[in-house]
Amino acid sequence: MARVLVIGGDAAGMSAAAALRRRLPVEHEVVVLERGEWTSYSACGIPYWVSGEVTEVDDLVARSPAEHRANGIDLRTGTEAVSIDLDAREVETAAGDRIAFDALVIATGAEPVRPDLPGIHGRGILGVQTLGDGQDVIDALAERPRDVVVVGSGYVGLEMAEACVLRGCRTTVVERAPVPLSIIEPVLGEQVAVAMRGRGIELRTSAAVSGFDLDGDGHVRGVRVDDEVLPADLVLLGLGVTARSALAVAAGLPTGVKGGIVTDARHRVAGADRVWAAGDCVETRDRTTGLPIHLPLGTHANKQGMVVADDVAATLLDEPTRLTFPGVVQTAITKFCALEISRTGLGEQQAREAGFDPVVVSIETSARAGYMPDAGSMTVLLVADRGSRRLLGVQVVGTENAGLRVDAAATALTAGMTVDDVVMLDLAYAPPFASVWSPVQVAARAAVKAMDA
Amino acid sequence: MARVLVIGGDAAGMSAAAALRRRLPVEHEVVVLERGEWTSYSACGIPYWVSGEVTEVDDLVARSPAEHRANGIDLRTGTEAVSIDLDAREVETAAGDRIAFDALVIATGAEPVRPDLPGIHGRGILGVQTLGDGQDVIDALAERPRDVVVVGSGYVGLEMAEACVLRGCRTTVVERAPVPLSIIEPVLGEQVAVAMRGRGIELRTSAAVSGFDLDGDGHVRGVRVDDEVLPADLVLLGLGVTARSALAVAAGLPTGVKGGIVTDARHRVAGADRVWAAGDCVETRDRTTGLPIHLPLGTHANKQGMVVADDVAATLLDEPTRLTFPGVVQTAITKFCALEISRTGLGEQQAREAGFDPVVVSIETSARAGYMPDAGSMTVLLVADRGSRRLLGVQVVGTENAGLRVDAAATALTAGMTVDDVVMLDLAYAPPFASVWSPVQVAARAAVKAMDA
Repeated sequence: MARVLVIGGDAAGMSAAAALRRRLPVEHEVVVLERGEWTSYSACGIPYWVSGEVTEVDDLVARSPAEHRANGIDLRTGTEAVSIDLDAREVETAAGDRIAFDALVIATGAEPVRPDLPGIHGRGILGVQTLGDGQDVIDALAERPRDVVVVGSGYVGLEMAEACVLRGCRTTVVERAPVPLSIIEPVLGEQVAVAMRGRGIELRTSAAVSGFDLDGDGHVRGVRVDDEVLPADLVLLGLGVTARSALAVAAGLPTGVKGGIVTDARHRVAGADRVWAAGDCVETRDRTTGLPIHLPLGTHANKQGMVVADDVAATLLDEPTRLTFPGVVQTAITKFCALEISRTGLGEQQAREAGFDPVVVSIETSARAGYMPDAGSMTVLLVADRGSRRLLGVQVVGTENAGLRVDAAATALTAGMTVDDVVMLDLAYAPPFASVWSPVQVAARAAVKAMDA
Repeated sequence: MARVLVIGGDAAGMSAAAALRRRLPVEHEVVVLERGEWTSYSACGIPYWVSGEVTEVDDLVARSPAEHRANGIDLRTGTEAVSIDLDAREVETAAGDRIAFDALVIATGAEPVRPDLPGIHGRGILGVQTLGDGQDVIDALAERPRDVVVVGSGYVGLEMAEACVLRGCRTTVVERAPVPLSIIEPVLGEQVAVAMRGRGIELRTSAAVSGFDLDGDGHVRGVRVDDEVLPADLVLLGLGVTARSALAVAAGLPTGVKGGIVTDARHRVAGADRVWAAGDCVETRDRTTGLPIHLPLGTHANKQGMVVADDVAATLLDEPTRLTFPGVVQTAITKFCALEISRTGLGEQQAREAGFDPVVVSIETSARAGYMPDAGSMTVLLVADRGSRRLLGVQVVGTENAGLRVDAAATALTAGMTVDDVVMLDLAYAPPFASVWSPVQVAARAAVKAMDA
């Protein structure tokens, strides 16, 4: 009999644990240490819980601790791992227990970036990563803050700003870059800026936060931006996350981009024996460039958890490994009110840095046939490599029916298709859904034209 | 100087003519013969014009005759070609003119199937293919028919039935098969049947039309179905179309599936010199099976017109040909009221006939994260080949946000991906758009499970 020990009870950890429990004979143990009280929850759903669209926190929990336990997983909530002894194959907990393992899965997730600024630890300055964080935000909003400042305008910042607007708060978003949402090209970010301002958000771009003013109780009352102090009763940090890998680092395990633990395609930790890692705490690989990247998203965490389970089981049962994680193509989607925003592949600068010779085109088209009522509109930006004509990236901003268009593009660029291949794809057409050339194909045709000019 | 003569002024013909006009030096002539008065119109838009959602017929015209003429195309509307003399390189018109050509493009489209049944030529029995047909339907509806019978429940039949319901007509749909919409598997067709009946349509399945009763004026008054006569003031034929290739056949050109003219990948007519054909009048090739198929859709017609223009220009200008048409993967999308319906690739029976060993799975999932308000639901049916694990087909029926999911599947199967590849695709995820596993991936995981069982 063997014991698999998983550190972390969210997407990667619990998907690995659940798959292992299904696959391993019952005499093997699957133990999970989770420092919080929730498991398998949707961090991505927090903005919709904060906005009130999702009413119960339990709705965000895909599988509760009780359900996992009923499935035979030895799940220990409220149990924090504080060190890993690789030689002894033991993990020590905050309570001082030492738990032996035959296979260790590190799935410690990510943590919001909290820049080391004066006042950053003041009360009312909240990150948004765990359900506990979400509850803190909801509690703070219940006290009816006069001014909410969101620092950063990545998708978490954007979604939290939308939630605050829907809750009726006076909301300011502070962004260091000239336009919001740096995951898309600035020309598309401008459209997001227009939408944000249209919903009454005060958007401060090219603005650097230098600190936070606190009142006598240590509660935030202002955000220092350049030479100004923006009033704030509540500050939400949307500055992205880094891998929560201190435990791995302390054990001597290798980390790379944004602190992500380095693994191979089976998600074995590089240079370590019988140690795997998955989810927001690892770095992964971009399939287009082959370069390492930290891309903390639930969708990758679930796949990686599945891959880990396959290889752990194969190792313990002496069977062949079937799965590897092939990496990501940086697909992402979000929305701001009615505006849908998505991307896949590389932006222009990323393409250039990876050694491609990018051709960039941007087109406007409708979401349905142009003559249909509510035809909608969208902008599609496409990046391709001039030499190979290969599709490198697609970004979309537009109304209903726009965002998910990137799925076909993500599939095409994963397959290494050229823009010419994309033009000839047989994509769905009927007047309520598209024009006779699908939006991504309209962009691909523009790219062909630009290349052949 | 050379003259390109195009027969047919809709999608394939006019896209070829317009591309040729842009590419050929001005001394070359581009002449188009169109027997009707409209050009470049959206036949697919007719149901939405009939329903009243599109109010002006001109909205369905992407480019008018005047616009084409302004672009330098010698467009002759009201001019019917009646014979082709391949040796003399001349086309004769109904008016007796003989027009010489250096290159001939046949783009004569398709015509609704009108089975040879007693009474089929009665007044009030209408096909739906041209804008003229659409106008006839609108005129007939203006006379407030008491009973409309739609014969056939392919997507044209379904869309026309929806239009009649939206216009407040008492509508019966008669279908020979046990379930409507044979382009999808029967298990999904059942959901369409429920939706149709839910909107008050009388759906008669497994019902064969044996003839039409006409009144003294030769106007339809009933549809004979088995031993019964269904009252009908207006009958709409939705029995599909066949290639309108009589002209080509008379000239000795080869035809195949459903009368489609046989061409190569550059859309040169097989065995003929300087003759091309494109659009609804040709047969094409299914990319998955390699087998010929007749698939009359505007999206293919436009691409084929572009391919023809490239090869005609290359021939006349003695340049290399750049484009070929790679064939289709049978992607289609439609809707019935709020129900979206789409498919790509092969159904189970098609897969079996093509020599694959199909594994078929069907799953239910939500269109957004399950905890979001209006999460919606959809059924995804997936067909894969047991031996190669290759994705062969995907079909979707569901609420808003469901139909276009087939685009990623169409791209994946075009690329020859396995279901394992699909599971690992990086598709867009955020709670308003999908669950952490995208619907097609949920189906792919079910297929993997079924294969590995």
